Amino acid sequence: MILDGKKIKNQILDELKDEVNNLTIKPKLVVIQVGNNEASNVYIKQKNNMCNYIGYNFEHFKLDEDTNIDNLLELIYKLNNDDSVNGILVQLPLPKHIDSNKIINAISPVKDVDGLTDTNIGMLCHKKDSLYSCTPYGVMELLDRYDIDVSEKNVVIVGRSDLVGKPMSMMMLNKDATVTICHSKTNNLTEFTKKADILIVAIGKPNFITTDMIREDAIVIDVGISRTELGLCGDVDFDSVKDKVKYITPVPGGVGPMTVAMLGKNILKAYKLQNK
Amino acid sequence: MILDGKKIKNQILDELKDEVNNLTIKPKLVVIQVGNNEASNVYIKQKNNMCNYIGYNFEHFKLDEDTNIDNLLELIYKLNNDDSVNGILVQLPLPKHIDSNKIINAISPVKDVDGLTDTNIGMLCHKKDSLYSCTPYGVMELLDRYDIDVSEKNVVIVGRSDLVGKPMSMMMLNKDATVTICHSKTNNLTEFTKKADILIVAIGKPNFITTDMIREDAIVIDVGISRTELGLCGDVDFDSVKDKVKYITPVPGGVGPMTVAMLGKNILKAYKLQNK
Repeated sequence: MILDGKKIKNQILDELKDEVNNLTIKPKLVVIQVGNNEASNVYIKQKNNMCNYIGYNFEHFKLDEDTNIDNLLELIYKLNNDDSVNGILVQLPLPKHIDSNKIINAISPVKDVDGLTDTNIGMLCHKKDSLYSCTPYGVMELLDRYDIDVSEKNVVIVGRSDLVGKPMSMMMLNKDATVTICHSKTNNLTEFTKKADILIVAIGKPNFITTDMIREDAIVIDVGISRTELGLCGDVDFDSVKDKVKYITPVPGGVGPMTVAMLGKNILKAYKLQNK
Repeated sequence: MILDGKKIKNQILDELKDEVNNLTIKPKLVVIQVGNNEASNVYIKQKNNMCNYIGYNFEHFKLDEDTNIDNLLELIYKLNNDDSVNGILVQLPLPKHIDSNKIINAISPVKDVDGLTDTNIGMLCHKKDSLYSCTPYGVMELLDRYDIDVSEKNVVIVGRSDLVGKPMSMMMLNKDATVTICHSKTNNLTEFTKKADILIVAIGKPNFITTDMIREDAIVIDVGISRTELGLCGDVDFDSVKDKVKYITPVPGGVGPMTVAMLGKNILKAYKLQNK
């Protein structure tokens, strides 16, 4: 059975649209871009469309490739102090001369709608309500919408990135799953993946997970997305595993759309955090 | 073979003493206590002794049980801004009328020598150099001093507390271990513990881990310490497992002393962070 991220995304956007429709002052997202990365242009367009659909205000600062870090920090501080701005998102990657870590952590945690600041990941670890990283948060939401309870389940995460693997582990732990985090240095990976009730893969290696690596009736969440000669492709060899699993996310149309939906949720959450 | 935390603690304190001896301005720890909890009095005395031994300055604020939160916050802000203070430690537990979370997170992360603020656990998740929670940091140091490499090892942590289990998992992950976090909601716990190359137990249940739950030649780290009729006792049934393991920490004399030693290390680290 397919976990249809695209369908759930549309449900979420409609729910948000209804809620925002009742607000006199509309939440506002600001996206900061430095340079003119083609992929970034596409992603920002998607975010703009999402905001338009829900009814959020949207502003896009597109700065020169050679912008210096002090000017960028100054802009972020200004937006931190601007009450009309509820969410601040710095589109990554930044040019090499800019320290991304410093820039991300300059964003006020209550406006950090990507959930990437040290403080927000720390609050997640401490099981506090905060702004969570959109992709793992989207995985949790997708499972929840299909009434899949993760409590007491053996959850195996392959990949330990700051963006997915690590926050994913804390979200699963906070929901009472037993969590194992595997990665490139894991020996006998299959021994772990084969035991998983829920297997989450985020390593960026096309078709890496094959049928012999999973158990019968597993739930498989494929966070990977790679562009190959045969088109977009996940970390899981979908065709080989699809008849063995209980649920699986397709690529595209699984976790990807959920990420945008959760950004939409985070903007409203940020607005509420700032106005409570 | 015994991992002798007491011996390693003394080595560390001597190393710190040598280093501090060469500093013109000595690092300073401030401990804030609210009320007169007996156990807290003992722990603070230990910290005072450690500071005296190394050559740190030490100051103890002992506030009335009915101190209100605003006065406590005011004191913390004052100490945050006092350049002569390098480490601030609020002795827990606080009286019930005070929100511990709010107090802990009021401490400047660069002075948070207990490593408990949201920001510091977040920096640990992001693999940044920061002040780490003393007990799990002590476990890492103890293994390191015995030349036990955790990279590529199967590490199983039983317990998911903010103080031990969660930061422990991130420290192990940062050192390339494959990490599983088990807890009270884990089904078939023995299936996980029996696979562990390194088993770390922090649940506060005396003698909970027995010989049938571990593999031959495992390394067992016992973080638990409970007072029973038979004396102090760990989470691991030491007598039953000691002949099966490769290494084990005793209780007392294993992880406990390391916690104090790592507080000592954190104070000097905080001093350096503030003076770089």
